[in-house]
Amino acid sequence: MTKKFPQERIAVYPGVFDPVTNGHMDIIDRSVRIFDRVIVAVAGNRPQTIFTLEERINLLIQSTTAYPQVQVTSFEGLLIDFVREQQANAIIRGLRAVSDFELEFQYALMNQHLAEDIETFFMMSRSRFMFITTAAIKQVIRFHGCVHDLVPEHVENALWEKFHGQ
Amino acid sequence: MTKKFPQERIAVYPGVFDPVTNGHMDIIDRSVRIFDRVIVAVAGNRPQTIFTLEERINLLIQSTTAYPQVQVTSFEGLLIDFVREQQANAIIRGLRAVSDFELEFQYALMNQHLAEDIETFFMMSRSRFMFITTAAIKQVIRFHGCVHDLVPEHVENALWEKFHGQ
Amino acid sequence: MTKKFPQERIAVYPGVFDPVTNGHMDIIDRSVRIFDRVIVAVAGNRPQTIFTLEERINLLIQSTTAYPQVQVTSFEGLLIDFVREQQANAIIRGLRAVSDFELEFQYALMNQHLAEDIETFFMMSRSRFMFITTAAIKQVIRFHGCVHDLVPEHVENALWEKFHGQ
Amino acid sequence: MTKKFPQERIAVYPGVFDPVTNGHMDIIDRSVRIFDRVIVAVAGNRPQTIFTLEERINLLIQSTTAYPQVQVTSFEGLLIDFVREQQANAIIRGLRAVSDFELEFQYALMNQHLAEDIETFFMMSRSRFMFITTAAIKQVIRFHGCVHDLVPEHVENALWEKFHGQ
Amino acid sequence: MTKKFPQERIAVYPGVFDPVTNGHMDIIDRSVRIFDRVIVAVAGNRPQTIFTLEERINLLIQSTTAYPQVQVTSFEGLLIDFVREQQANAIIRGLRAVSDFELEFQYALMNQHLAEDIETFFMMSRSRFMFITTAAIKQVIRFHGCVHDLVPEHVENALWEKFHGQ
Amino acid sequence: MTKKFPQERIAVYPGVFDPVTNGHMDIIDRSVRIFDRVIVAVAGNRPQTIFTLEERINLLIQSTTAYPQVQVTSFEGLLIDFVREQQANAIIRGLRAVSDFELEFQYALMNQHLAEDIETFFMMSRSRFMFITTAAIKQVIRFHGCVHDLVPEHVENALWEKFHGQ
Repeated sequence: MTKKFPQERIAVYPGVFDPVTNGHMDIIDRSVRIFDRVIVAVAGNRPQTIFTLEERINLLIQSTTAYPQVQVTSFEGLLIDFVREQQANAIIRGLRAVSDFELEFQYALMNQHLAEDIETFFMMSRSRFMFITTAAIKQVIRFHGCVHDLVPEHVENALWEKFHGQ
Repeated sequence: MTKKFPQERIAVYPGVFDPVTNGHMDIIDRSVRIFDRVIVAVAGNRPQTIFTLEERINLLIQSTTAYPQVQVTSFEGLLIDFVREQQANAIIRGLRAVSDFELEFQYALMNQHLAEDIETFFMMSRSRFMFITTAAIKQVIRFHGCVHDLVPEHVENALWEKFHGQ
Repeated sequence: MTKKFPQERIAVYPGVFDPVTNGHMDIIDRSVRIFDRVIVAVAGNRPQTIFTLEERINLLIQSTTAYPQVQVTSFEGLLIDFVREQQANAIIRGLRAVSDFELEFQYALMNQHLAEDIETFFMMSRSRFMFITTAAIKQVIRFHGCVHDLVPEHVENALWEKFHGQ
Repeated sequence: MTKKFPQERIAVYPGVFDPVTNGHMDIIDRSVRIFDRVIVAVAGNRPQTIFTLEERINLLIQSTTAYPQVQVTSFEGLLIDFVREQQANAIIRGLRAVSDFELEFQYALMNQHLAEDIETFFMMSRSRFMFITTAAIKQVIRFHGCVHDLVPEHVENALWEKFHGQ
Repeated sequence: MTKKFPQERIAVYPGVFDPVTNGHMDIIDRSVRIFDRVIVAVAGNRPQTIFTLEERINLLIQSTTAYPQVQVTSFEGLLIDFVREQQANAIIRGLRAVSDFELEFQYALMNQHLAEDIETFFMMSRSRFMFITTAAIKQVIRFHGCVHDLVPEHVENALWEKFHGQ
Repeated sequence: MTKKFPQERIAVYPGVFDPVTNGHMDIIDRSVRIFDRVIVAVAGNRPQTIFTLEERINLLIQSTTAYPQVQVTSFEGLLIDFVREQQANAIIRGLRAVSDFELEFQYALMNQHLAEDIETFFMMSRSRFMFITTAAIKQVIRFHGCVHDLVPEHVENALWEKFHGQ
């Protein structure tokens, strides 16, 4: 029997990651169980992020040092073109809520239209990460609340510095 | 670098399959691009199916002859126990609608509770298969409607025979 | 300019109507503003209704005497076949909630698959009828609660008699 | 200033409780912070429960001994009539998911229609209890799975005995 | 029997149409089967459209030359006032997803409050157009992706010119 | 028996209130049946409101003169910190739709994470207020539509003056 699909399974996990949270880290941790390589793709073309593209990438690199299969990079343009360039087989997306689901469904159908051979896989957020959004985390930090357990420690420090100086 | 995860990726795709539809076939077709082996697991313990467990398995076997990576089998008991026995890494589920999503979310969280190391991956139904449910197909066939394009041809024949004799 | 569509607009409003409620009556009242004829189609093939098919039809006929454009009849088999037989152009459905929406979406897509030329139109329930379901009404009546304002008066009487004798 | 509402706040927390879970216990625990008395009302008129009404009540009584403000009782008929008889001010309901929400919304609107002065309060399930349903728990126990952390210990024992004898 | 409603059925199909897509065209095509006249009403008062009001109208006029029953015009102010001025009987809206549904439900209830005699009819998007949003189309074109099959050909050309010059 | 919870039940009802509507008033009216004191907390830190913080507070004070238990105040920063400062036991939120529900669910879970002892209670909007949003009301007033029955009379006047001068 000959395999018709590439031996190496490569997935792209795209996002803005402003900043990376424990919810994102959980999806990464679970993705590497199935995929040989996971490319975390940080969207460059977004207005009004708190962290610059470079900062968002660096926070992710620091967060994923334990995963040799994970590579962090930026992308511009259509996600589907980036996925092709990387010769990846799949897109990974986390789902937290019904409203996520609907938007993601439309994206997935559009991506199927643009590239039938690239598959989107969805993973449900663990229940303890369900309520973590980067918007909520920034709001909490802004008013001196505690985001311990919600983001990696070095991200907590970076948030604190960004909002309240050293 | 040494891999900490098994080389062979095995996914279980569970369901009642009463009978298999083109929607199911699409999920199978897309799963084998990522997984080395896909075990289609037919739930035995369901009341009021039109086809017997044996018939449901046979219709699936006939539908998947083109996929050497696919194995069709029945299961009883907790899905998560079956997945373990098969030494599989993942569960595959198709999503068609928000109502699917919510129920699947609860199942996925329960399965995470029971077995943290087994991952559930969700795939969105293609738009042209979104409205296919086995209940609708049985209703259409029962009243002599056409289900061509909705199920494999030999399944159409089996449905016809089941509802209207030869 | 020649019209390519029939002058007479005929809509089918299908349902179980066990029994007709003020929510149904509102949809009928609003349908006749657009359609020349509205055929209320009572599904015959349902188990466990409180009222027989004949009773459900009679309650509807009594409820619609003020509407000369409305015709009440039963149907068996596929709705789409019944719509064709009646040479109707459209199906009317009321929507109360997201869960209605999803199921109706699947039905509408299946009906499009079976008959591209027959259109389903959805009307949102008025807010004051949003919570009326035949199941809730039967539950309330069963325990001697008041369903005035929720069903036509003769339906209230029929419900009372059905549950509590004369 | 004279108060126009009763000094004592009494809430009814209705359900089937077949059996009581840690999700239910969490709602009870949070309700007693606001209400002077919480009446857990066990629905008697349900077919196909695993535990008899008496057993369901006893499991709840054992689970709530630490709460002097909690009273466990059965009810028949319309919930709203029971609430009135108890001279309660409020109904408590837990919400886990969008599908819960929609059904509960319809119930709450119907109850408002029947009794404008009785208020329904909803509490969101804690994220760690979100996936607990009595159906899932019974399924897990049936196949010898572990429901520790999901139900109180004596309920786990009762479930085990019910499904697998001593 | 005398009719109490006008012989001519006129529907308003409002939107921003920045630009018109095949999803919009499908709704127009299906609307003219039931309504004698369909007025496509282009909202003028929107910030940040890619095409000017005049361009959006012209693209629609070019797209609807085959439909003598369709008239394209702009509107300002409350939709319900515009509908009255046009002596129309109905508003047409397309639905793609649950999130559309909820927002449209609120609009429809508000419009019922403002004008009880004007009816909103909803049509479900065909499954092959479900994922088409003007935002997605603009994103795809911006990065040189293909939107063939998603918009009429002259709209594709206009998008290309707008984003990438001739 | 000694009570372990404070005798006085204090709830915070937070919002932007730009301006207060009859939907908000209904929630206030229903809250005071259960809580000894209801603190209406007007969010100060919001861009692009039509009314200034002071105006929004004044419109609320005028609207709640009949309720001696209600206190209107502004808050800045994290809601949960404000609730603590006020020594309140609970947060009150109204729900109109599934999309409200999801966002509120995430807020409630985040607030549980930040302060386990403060409870969020949800009340479903009455059906006749379901479609009232401050955005819709401002849109209607802007184009000289009627918002009578949707907001208190003095709010209607204030809106009229704000949009159209005296």
